[in-house]
Amino acid sequence: MNYAYLKQEGNDFTIMKINPGENILKEIMKQVKKIQIKNLIVDSASIESWNTLTKFSNKNIKLEIDGNLIKNMRKIKTSEEINHLRKAGELTMRGMQVASEVISPGMKEAEIVAEIEYSIRKNDFGRIAFETIVASGKNSAFPHGSFPSKEIKKGDIVVVDVGAKYNHYCSDMSRTFVVGKTSIKQKKIIQTVQRAQKEGIQGLKDGVDAKYVDNVSREIINIEGYGDYFVHSLGHGVGLEVHEQPIISSASQDKLVSGNVVTVEPGIYIPDFGGVRIEDTILIKKDSIEKLTTGINNFEL
Amino acid sequence: MNYAYLKQEGNDFTIMKINPGENILKEIMKQVKKIQIKNLIVDSASIESWNTLTKFSNKNIKLEIDGNLIKNMRKIKTSEEINHLRKAGELTMRGMQVASEVISPGMKEAEIVAEIEYSIRKNDFGRIAFETIVASGKNSAFPHGSFPSKEIKKGDIVVVDVGAKYNHYCSDMSRTFVVGKTSIKQKKIIQTVQRAQKEGIQGLKDGVDAKYVDNVSREIINIEGYGDYFVHSLGHGVGLEVHEQPIISSASQDKLVSGNVVTVEPGIYIPDFGGVRIEDTILIKKDSIEKLTTGINNFEL
Repeated sequence: MNYAYLKQEGNDFTIMKINPGENILKEIMKQVKKIQIKNLIVDSASIESWNTLTKFSNKNIKLEIDGNLIKNMRKIKTSEEINHLRKAGELTMRGMQVASEVISPGMKEAEIVAEIEYSIRKNDFGRIAFETIVASGKNSAFPHGSFPSKEIKKGDIVVVDVGAKYNHYCSDMSRTFVVGKTSIKQKKIIQTVQRAQKEGIQGLKDGVDAKYVDNVSREIINIEGYGDYFVHSLGHGVGLEVHEQPIISSASQDKLVSGNVVTVEPGIYIPDFGGVRIEDTILIKKDSIEKLTTGINNFEL
Repeated sequence: MNYAYLKQEGNDFTIMKINPGENILKEIMKQVKKIQIKNLIVDSASIESWNTLTKFSNKNIKLEIDGNLIKNMRKIKTSEEINHLRKAGELTMRGMQVASEVISPGMKEAEIVAEIEYSIRKNDFGRIAFETIVASGKNSAFPHGSFPSKEIKKGDIVVVDVGAKYNHYCSDMSRTFVVGKTSIKQKKIIQTVQRAQKEGIQGLKDGVDAKYVDNVSREIINIEGYGDYFVHSLGHGVGLEVHEQPIISSASQDKLVSGNVVTVEPGIYIPDFGGVRIEDTILIKKDSIEKLTTGINNFEL
């Protein structure tokens, strides 16, 4: 269907048309035989696709599956990719800025989402990397909860998680606001998460074990007694997908290196009370880091 | 991560927590053994997941893969699903109405997309089923093209493809507008597509072969000499996903039956000139059809 478009845009590629009723994998294997590829590595395939590939293969072709082949390549970003990721970060911060301006008592969560996404989309190249999360009051205790018809109330904690996309590259940022005066308990949790994020970011270094960085943040939350409420890993890679490798978790085998772009996003979620998450997307460099999202640190609206 | 949320929302299900480092498929196979399931049918699995399932299975369990098991069940919608699809259609029409109101010379494609999606999102339950397409001028010749920084010009054809989601159910609607006075060639193409859509919709009947319906529309376009420019199939099922079964194409083996919800969307795409697509989402009933999207038939803005 997109043949004409790809012919125009895909200059470096040979574009072939597959007609209705033809099997794309069969056509691929025809090309593999024609140009005599001896070792074909597939990065992902359903069991059915794999069976089709095997069926149209032959003994001269070594078929392999390696789910990490492309994922590993994608862990380290090129300077061109980093430029796209910077722009995605700028658009994301714009969306978060709008959130901090519009959140007020009486507004519905869905209306806030609409304003945030509108501010990103009206830019020529702003796309949405994932459905914006606005979770207020007790609902903020669900990391990915969203209750669109819920109205914001005075005293509510509001978790906002925004991601814009620029030229196919994503960004990811969360802030937690309080509408009106912050209670002592809210303040304690927010400041704990702020500190866990700050220390986690300081732990990001070329060559460090990802699980060590998770531990740095997690320990701060543990010490304050909220360890059971930090129910997810500290962060993840960001690139063409909003969640990619490396993973920053207690079980991660990844080593962080220069060129990785990762989130650092500690959170505390207390059932029937509320949640707090603070997240930025960060580039790891040889001797430093660069925050691709930053700012909007005022939490009391 | 969403354990607390699912515990609250998933009343009919047993919700289990999988901890970091645990393998979800291994945990599933534990349950399969525990409740002595003898025949486990999986609807989709990557080759790696399949290997994991096999590894943790045993000779008492018959493992099977059937990619159509769930897809076939989903072809026929329940009355509850139809209600959600109706609402999704209403939200989609609202977005298209906004498109017809805001499209004007000087506006960028991205700005029109922002307005459409905002109008859907600001409703409590309006979500976006897919990235809205606004393709104007020569770009409209690419069925899924989008050039966000392009400004609308007088005389441009503008293809708009919108899909809202309500309670997880999608809708899909396209209209083609002309900004200012329609040229003779534009009018001929638009009217041909209008007629092809109308006849295609009239072909929808409980028990009809899907490929017959594709042929009804395609013949009208063939006769007018645009057959080579109708580069996609006539339609597809719509439900939890915006593209699902049944497929209405020349190669389709599907029979359409009461309870199917499908699109009818003929299109003509002429390189270096422009494209036209008109699409509605339609419910097939026992002795009639119900348009879940309809109206906004004025094409000259």
